[in-house]
Amino acid sequence: ADLQAGKAKSAVCAACHGANGISIIPDYPNLAGQKVKYLQSSIKAYRDGERKNPIMSPMASGLSDADIANIAAYFASLPAGG
Amino acid sequence: ADLQAGKAKSAVCAACHGANGISIIPDYPNLAGQKVKYLQSSIKAYRDGERKNPIMSPMASGLSDADIANIAAYFASLPAGG
Repeated sequence: ADLQAGKAKSAVCAACHGANGISIIPDYPNLAGQKVKYLQSSIKAYRDGERKNPIMSPMASGLSDADIANIAAYFASLPAGG
Repeated sequence: ADLQAGKAKSAVCAACHGANGISIIPDYPNLAGQKVKYLQSSIKAYRDGERKNPIMSPMASGLSDADIANIAAYFASLPAGG
């Protein structure tokens, strides 16, 4: 995966999940240091409609598999706990 | 929430999510240091059928709101990253 591309693509995610992957809003999960495969399957689930959320579904809708791999790899690479 | 009760109740979760909340299986999320509100809403979603998973749905089915609050508080209290 391309961490730089993931970082660029994840800019919009930072609004809720935090620039360091520790979410600003208690209802939303921290992503930093999370398992890359879990992050990938979650974003795909939102993109493909398996999981539904008024915010995450549109966020994920335009992403390619490569985008998802890069975004997931980027957040997984951040230190857990920030 | 009662962390001791949460720890006791979470023993079965450790099989996949790890005794320290860092999951053993790459497909399953780390829970250590996750947002308590997100953990609660996730477990409830599995219990109440909003989220469906062949393993998590039965795991969550028998839990009371108090169980869920205790389990969520316990995993949230563990150091992120293990």
